[in-house]
Amino acid sequence: MLEKRLPIHIGEAVNRVMMHKKSGTTEWVSINESYGRFLSEDLKATSDVPHFDRAPYDGYAIRSKDTSEATQTTPVTFEVVDHIGAGMVSDKELGPFQAVRIMTGAQMPVGADSVVMFELAKESAIDGINYMSVKKIHKQGENVSYRGEDAKEGEVLVNKGTFINPGIQAMLATFGYDKVPVAKKPVVGLYATGTELLEVNEPLVPGKIRNSNSYMISAQIQRAGAEVRYFGQLPDDFDTCFEAVSNAIGEVDIFITTGGVSVGDFDYLPQIYEKLGAEVLFNKVAMRPGSVTTVAQLDGKLLFGLSGNPSACYVGFELFARPIIRIMLCAEWPHLRKEKAVLNADFPKANPFTRFVRSALSIEDGKLVVTPSGLDKSNIIMSLAGANSLMILPGGTRGFECGDNVEVLMLEDQSGSEWPW
Amino acid sequence: MLEKRLPIHIGEAVNRVMMHKKSGTTEWVSINESYGRFLSEDLKATSDVPHFDRAPYDGYAIRSKDTSEATQTTPVTFEVVDHIGAGMVSDKELGPFQAVRIMTGAQMPVGADSVVMFELAKESAIDGINYMSVKKIHKQGENVSYRGEDAKEGEVLVNKGTFINPGIQAMLATFGYDKVPVAKKPVVGLYATGTELLEVNEPLVPGKIRNSNSYMISAQIQRAGAEVRYFGQLPDDFDTCFEAVSNAIGEVDIFITTGGVSVGDFDYLPQIYEKLGAEVLFNKVAMRPGSVTTVAQLDGKLLFGLSGNPSACYVGFELFARPIIRIMLCAEWPHLRKEKAVLNADFPKANPFTRFVRSALSIEDGKLVVTPSGLDKSNIIMSLAGANSLMILPGGTRGFECGDNVEVLMLEDQSGSEWPW
Repeated sequence: MLEKRLPIHIGEAVNRVMMHKKSGTTEWVSINESYGRFLSEDLKATSDVPHFDRAPYDGYAIRSKDTSEATQTTPVTFEVVDHIGAGMVSDKELGPFQAVRIMTGAQMPVGADSVVMFELAKESAIDGINYMSVKKIHKQGENVSYRGEDAKEGEVLVNKGTFINPGIQAMLATFGYDKVPVAKKPVVGLYATGTELLEVNEPLVPGKIRNSNSYMISAQIQRAGAEVRYFGQLPDDFDTCFEAVSNAIGEVDIFITTGGVSVGDFDYLPQIYEKLGAEVLFNKVAMRPGSVTTVAQLDGKLLFGLSGNPSACYVGFELFARPIIRIMLCAEWPHLRKEKAVLNADFPKANPFTRFVRSALSIEDGKLVVTPSGLDKSNIIMSLAGANSLMILPGGTRGFECGDNVEVLMLEDQSGSEWPW
Repeated sequence: MLEKRLPIHIGEAVNRVMMHKKSGTTEWVSINESYGRFLSEDLKATSDVPHFDRAPYDGYAIRSKDTSEATQTTPVTFEVVDHIGAGMVSDKELGPFQAVRIMTGAQMPVGADSVVMFELAKESAIDGINYMSVKKIHKQGENVSYRGEDAKEGEVLVNKGTFINPGIQAMLATFGYDKVPVAKKPVVGLYATGTELLEVNEPLVPGKIRNSNSYMISAQIQRAGAEVRYFGQLPDDFDTCFEAVSNAIGEVDIFITTGGVSVGDFDYLPQIYEKLGAEVLFNKVAMRPGSVTTVAQLDGKLLFGLSGNPSACYVGFELFARPIIRIMLCAEWPHLRKEKAVLNADFPKANPFTRFVRSALSIEDGKLVVTPSGLDKSNIIMSLAGANSLMILPGGTRGFECGDNVEVLMLEDQSGSEWPW
């Protein structure tokens, strides 16, 4: 009675999914809405920065050659012929021993090639005319920010696929991107299946539990950068599920169900995939939790059949669905970022399958340390709350000890890994 | 002419700001909108989890005592009297040598205290009646998830101030929080000042630059978890700025300006604070960049006068404004998370003031490594793009070398530090 499924290696499973990846497309959004999105084109400098020679300090713009005789005992005196702040442009062209009082960020006057900082300038006034004297030789270019010093027009400054952070927002503004090319968010459809599911606002009744997977996966979809299209929950009834699923698939880019993929008597997803004519890429992965995770494709569209078990559901999403979303967001490294850490607990029990343990990754004295974030029973959602990582414990004949080096997948990170398997 | 300001220590400056902190208030949002917000109340279990005894595997629910004579050679046979999936409840009470076929997640039938997994059950049928036999003694409670095993009603599971991640979304759903108490986002008002500023969609002209600070700070405000109220940009004109600022302050919880706080001839914020009757908490901090950062308070409302220099503006926000926002989001650790890392570059030049260097923090072989994310000229916004951290180089008489241990503040992290100074 028990259907025999052959487990495949996690890397092979991810590989089969990634064969159906689709690249991202561009949409243009206002710069006011671009924070937190992903660039879909390289960000190029549309001008030099700065785009004019400017004063980096408050002081006096002068001709440096006029200071060539200046010494501590024989200061050189300049007549102050103008006074400008940032955003103002002097209409004076500096002659010999003339200076323009200039504020940080203002454009250098014509003829000036150096700025005397206030601290080195001695000011005076005679008959309503302002003077400034300096006791030190200034070199050509001293205290001047030259045009193009920070960036040259046409230069690629940030690569496509990069998460737009506050610094990139500043760059977009600097270069006049009032509309920003960002990766269109893929729309991820979601159905939760299970006769046991109550809505969140329903009171508990015997044998039933509230549907938590939909809310968890919705948040995971958003964290990955995509948009959720939640269709609702379905009882374990073949006809109801088949009709709902076949109607929903066409409306989304990626389709996820939770529950119904195991070999239980009321697990209908395998038959639904069959009736839809979808190609099942795998239905058993050598991993815990989530070994029954099933992925199918229908006309190139990926259908993720995640387990109804919250932990398995969570892990299945992160390993298989997230990279597909990230590729559609133009990511160069679509997989969860993998790093090494020191294990801070014992795991004496060996497991034939690779385990993904929900974990709290912390930093102690500059080193990554990882601890399970709760009891590791696969039905305990409590341990999900404190999880910022998944510890990878390879399957084998031995357990693991406190102090062992292990690999971890970081859940709250935008940088990603190229191919962690 | 040059106003003398006395620099205070960074920790003292933060301290003066924090004396005016205000705690957060609650708003109730739909669970569909709670991901990414901060809990304003402790999350308590509203029921036991599971709230009924349940089968953690597919199999047969039995009375364990009926297996007391089972051996490899003398299997015990049970009559299968019912068949239930998750969400169904059997109306049978198990008698001796009776079993209910049960799927993962279903409620244990009355009388049953153990589950025989499919792998250990041999099935048969005679005259339309199903039987199951088992060769192994099962203990009371074997393969049963008992009520309250994962969480007890009333237990505090997540503390207030916690960032709501996908795992917490699952918990909120499990416990029926269709409305979630989250910290109301403080509204942060923002004006950019500077005659040199162009709008993002304006072409460049001599002496002027596009306003990038507003977009950068807006993203920083959002990253910190607050709401932006952007009022626009202002020229360096006292009357215009005074009127705009005094009208705006009343509309927001926290008020930020960029530019106009230095000692330049067109820096009017100091006079504006004076005319408003605001108490200046400090106007000079022993740090680079951002030494001119000024913070004032007016009737308990904080007015952050950030430098117009992009790097100084960025750092000033993160050090002074972010923790105030986080306190209003009920954070226990409102300051940027501080960790140790190994410096991967030379900084030969000593600096009397503590430097905050925009840096790329990475992980090599499980250890934090930090590198400046660009040339560290304070007017180069390019280096902001790659920054995920601020390296702290304490002021003093010596420089720093590759391989030195340094402290870093992590910019893209929700966990925070209690008091890093």
